[in-house]
Amino acid sequence: MTEMLDLATTVEGLDGLELVGNWHVNNDNIHEVARMFQDRGFKISMLVPDLWTQAKWGKGSIAAPDAKTRQAAVDEVRKVMDWGAELGCSYVDVRPGQDGYDYCFQADYIEAWKWLGDGLVACANHNDKVRVLVEYKLKEPRTHCFVTSAAKVLLLLQGLDKVGVLLDVGHSIAAGENAAEAAALLASHRKLDYLHLNDNYRSWDDDMMVGAVHLVEYLELAYWLKRLVYKGWLTLDIFPYREDGVRAAMQCREWMAVFFRSVDRVGIDKFTEVIRSADACSASDLVRCALNM
Amino acid sequence: MTEMLDLATTVEGLDGLELVGNWHVNNDNIHEVARMFQDRGFKISMLVPDLWTQAKWGKGSIAAPDAKTRQAAVDEVRKVMDWGAELGCSYVDVRPGQDGYDYCFQADYIEAWKWLGDGLVACANHNDKVRVLVEYKLKEPRTHCFVTSAAKVLLLLQGLDKVGVLLDVGHSIAAGENAAEAAALLASHRKLDYLHLNDNYRSWDDDMMVGAVHLVEYLELAYWLKRLVYKGWLTLDIFPYREDGVRAAMQCREWMAVFFRSVDRVGIDKFTEVIRSADACSASDLVRCALNM
Amino acid sequence: MTEMLDLATTVEGLDGLELVGNWHVNNDNIHEVARMFQDRGFKISMLVPDLWTQAKWGKGSIAAPDAKTRQAAVDEVRKVMDWGAELGCSYVDVRPGQDGYDYCFQADYIEAWKWLGDGLVACANHNDKVRVLVEYKLKEPRTHCFVTSAAKVLLLLQGLDKVGVLLDVGHSIAAGENAAEAAALLASHRKLDYLHLNDNYRSWDDDMMVGAVHLVEYLELAYWLKRLVYKGWLTLDIFPYREDGVRAAMQCREWMAVFFRSVDRVGIDKFTEVIRSADACSASDLVRCALNM
Amino acid sequence: MTEMLDLATTVEGLDGLELVGNWHVNNDNIHEVARMFQDRGFKISMLVPDLWTQAKWGKGSIAAPDAKTRQAAVDEVRKVMDWGAELGCSYVDVRPGQDGYDYCFQADYIEAWKWLGDGLVACANHNDKVRVLVEYKLKEPRTHCFVTSAAKVLLLLQGLDKVGVLLDVGHSIAAGENAAEAAALLASHRKLDYLHLNDNYRSWDDDMMVGAVHLVEYLELAYWLKRLVYKGWLTLDIFPYREDGVRAAMQCREWMAVFFRSVDRVGIDKFTEVIRSADACSASDLVRCALNM
Repeated sequence: MTEMLDLATTVEGLDGLELVGNWHVNNDNIHEVARMFQDRGFKISMLVPDLWTQAKWGKGSIAAPDAKTRQAAVDEVRKVMDWGAELGCSYVDVRPGQDGYDYCFQADYIEAWKWLGDGLVACANHNDKVRVLVEYKLKEPRTHCFVTSAAKVLLLLQGLDKVGVLLDVGHSIAAGENAAEAAALLASHRKLDYLHLNDNYRSWDDDMMVGAVHLVEYLELAYWLKRLVYKGWLTLDIFPYREDGVRAAMQCREWMAVFFRSVDRVGIDKFTEVIRSADACSASDLVRCALNM
Repeated sequence: MTEMLDLATTVEGLDGLELVGNWHVNNDNIHEVARMFQDRGFKISMLVPDLWTQAKWGKGSIAAPDAKTRQAAVDEVRKVMDWGAELGCSYVDVRPGQDGYDYCFQADYIEAWKWLGDGLVACANHNDKVRVLVEYKLKEPRTHCFVTSAAKVLLLLQGLDKVGVLLDVGHSIAAGENAAEAAALLASHRKLDYLHLNDNYRSWDDDMMVGAVHLVEYLELAYWLKRLVYKGWLTLDIFPYREDGVRAAMQCREWMAVFFRSVDRVGIDKFTEVIRSADACSASDLVRCALNM
Repeated sequence: MTEMLDLATTVEGLDGLELVGNWHVNNDNIHEVARMFQDRGFKISMLVPDLWTQAKWGKGSIAAPDAKTRQAAVDEVRKVMDWGAELGCSYVDVRPGQDGYDYCFQADYIEAWKWLGDGLVACANHNDKVRVLVEYKLKEPRTHCFVTSAAKVLLLLQGLDKVGVLLDVGHSIAAGENAAEAAALLASHRKLDYLHLNDNYRSWDDDMMVGAVHLVEYLELAYWLKRLVYKGWLTLDIFPYREDGVRAAMQCREWMAVFFRSVDRVGIDKFTEVIRSADACSASDLVRCALNM
Repeated sequence: MTEMLDLATTVEGLDGLELVGNWHVNNDNIHEVARMFQDRGFKISMLVPDLWTQAKWGKGSIAAPDAKTRQAAVDEVRKVMDWGAELGCSYVDVRPGQDGYDYCFQADYIEAWKWLGDGLVACANHNDKVRVLVEYKLKEPRTHCFVTSAAKVLLLLQGLDKVGVLLDVGHSIAAGENAAEAAALLASHRKLDYLHLNDNYRSWDDDMMVGAVHLVEYLELAYWLKRLVYKGWLTLDIFPYREDGVRAAMQCREWMAVFFRSVDRVGIDKFTEVIRSADACSASDLVRCALNM
């Protein structure tokens, strides 16, 4: 952890990091963790309950067929919420990646959907200092997760005002969404709470650097974030398997700066005007103009 | 039309056909159409307002940026609803395929979503004898439609009890869904109103015959239709480009019979038991057993 | 035709157009066509035998199961080659889109592969003034075409020096290729003869404007075209369904100018150096730098 | 290893297993390994040089940009070939999964393609008792591997008679191929040497049990294996993440028995007749008939 944090201080513009419950934080080290972050001027942007790496979640977490496992998952989220409250971290990230199925005839979709909702209700009000966010994903580790898209998570969270959504841009792209549209949909339901940035080739969550593939989509996302007055975190969820992590993070930062600068170069109003014309040629022209090409 | 209907009489087990507004039905021929169907003992299972082939819908129909176009789309749906009432047809199928975008920066997602909802509200109560159904699709003719998935259409229809959903199995598969899960989700919101059957290779709405690719998925769908006590139409939306249409329809019918017979061979309860075990090996075994292999 | 050509004169930088045999050219109008092109200073970049729209090609063209159909397809290509020779057009584009299958158990892969080769041999030497090019595509109109990828067309053309390849960038992307890699592979086999430019969202041949999606891929393609000293045509194969055709063509031209200018901004050698470092962060940095962001 | 082998004895019909070089076999334990297999009556169907898990292969193996790494990869393959000769194993499986790229501008496609060929040449003649097979894959661990498809591996191996191909059915499906067509193409080039069986949902190499998804495709593959008189191994490459491995293997075996039995039920000649009719309805009918539905 010390090594990771020291490395993090070399990433220009970095304000905070996410931590995974039990991996990085536990009852024994919580005060030490707080101090390590304070010493370096970092915030903990997010605490993530580990609901996917341990064997006990192999058949599901908050929507597991086994009632005790479901309760254990709720307990795990609540515990991490309490840690968050103590650490001044405002969010926990519920990733129900094990909640799904691999094969046909392996899940009772009606029951599972109900269990998902029940589990989130059971977490939502546990600690008012910490907001539960759900991170959707089409697949992995399951070949089919239950909570796959922006629309599906919003449907799940109908009436659950206290639970929000974490939009992982790569998950959105790999789910066949346009991330900008997903962001707008979430925001119009007051649930665009937090962003994970990364890129991929659409068929898998490759967790690549921003700027790898979807430049136009990212530019459009930047426009919508400005238009929607998004004030939340812009965090990186990349997996620099063969790259130097610090350099990879810096590349992402540079690309995000390009996209926001490009929106400013043209201005929100001009973008909105072209959008409302619904004219693809004008849109194409505007993209080149904004990107300074 | 006469030719089509006469051909249809040669398809064993056929109870009805869908008609497209203006293509097949109009104010002048409506009584004649009614008689042609009666003479052959056919019902009109569905009337489909043509919201996608004419130039006027080129930039959208119920969610077009132009207010007059939106109104024209609503008027079109209402007109076809009235025809439906007159013809004893219970459903109109709203296919907002032109409502979407091809390029980034070509749609105002916030406005479009609102327009979609407003348009459906404006249709919903128009004629109590006819229920409006929305048919979702990931893409085509647009590269991105707005109403892409079961979850998204349910989100759109929150609070709109009078509007239901048409589940086109091929659209579901091509949208990355498991159609059985989509059916269960729709049914649990009381919106599994009508089915289109066909198959494809997942990346495009190929409109192939049932039995072409997704045998296990179709078997699972058959189980859920029985479990959910689905009583609605099972209609074919295939495009037998190189095949004899009557023979192609008969093949689909045979395949559906296989799937329902296979569910009965094992029994709903046995399926439910295996599903609840969440055990993939048992599921695999059960599939072979049910299919009599 | 006159209308099309007059419109074409308004597209800046346009040097030529493709024509489809029988649609645009036939024995009766061939001299008139030649004059119409000369009058406007246009070349005919390509003649395309129509092997896919007529009913007789419904079960295949040069690889149809029926021997007479195969012969008719060869005859059609040869006829169009002769027209090409007369019109000063150097290429015919063989698009075996109907040669494939939709369903399993619908094609004899061993025979079909042999027929494809035989048909191309029969065309190759017909008229030395015109080179036969094969345009590969993963699917459409078939759900499975036989000639799907750069590697597969090269395998098919082993030993057939007189037949080359038309690389449609959109087909390449929709076939899961990186178009730059496909171009390099074709060029290293001396078969990068001709280019179709367009873009899409990877799962279908959307025939969108250049610049719609794949900016980084197109930049990489521009680098490779320069490095490979490609001197052939850069033609557009876009389908501006909702756009003004002339404006859409101009957008594509602007985007291509951006990509080539960007390669020049950094220089071929710098790109090659970064490529050989195999370092993703340096590559990411270079892309931003080249695109002037 | 003992545990694995003892478990393997409980899988009915199992004749052999694959081993990975250095993981399972090394210079020290080779005689012991031989004895352990003999004691249980198992053959070693395949030895797999580990060219993908170690850090040294992070930027590639036989096509790495670094010449020493390429030589090390060749040496590794040769070493494992010698082990194979000693253990009576006829094949080594070269999996160039690290040979590829993640980002644009990260690989010199011309050089890499040459290096791939050179490396395989350097291995091919090393030990005549052992045949080198190349296992192609679209992606993973790279987002783009170089050797992606049956056609591409055949192109690479032109003139290299001593090197064959391992067809992993799941890789084929995930690469957008129809595995039966891939098998026929490989066999017609005398390179259908070895099979890995598994299934997936097309967009990722999920390594699921046979029978999970692609029943029709597997039936077609079974027909072609019989028609092509394939006599090689039928091995499983599944990853039963949440399943009991022995039961999962047994399920695959049952499914393969179904497919071969179904081909026999109808007979090769009947299948060939329907295939040559190119009639989708007859094909659909035949599939139901063969599968005893």
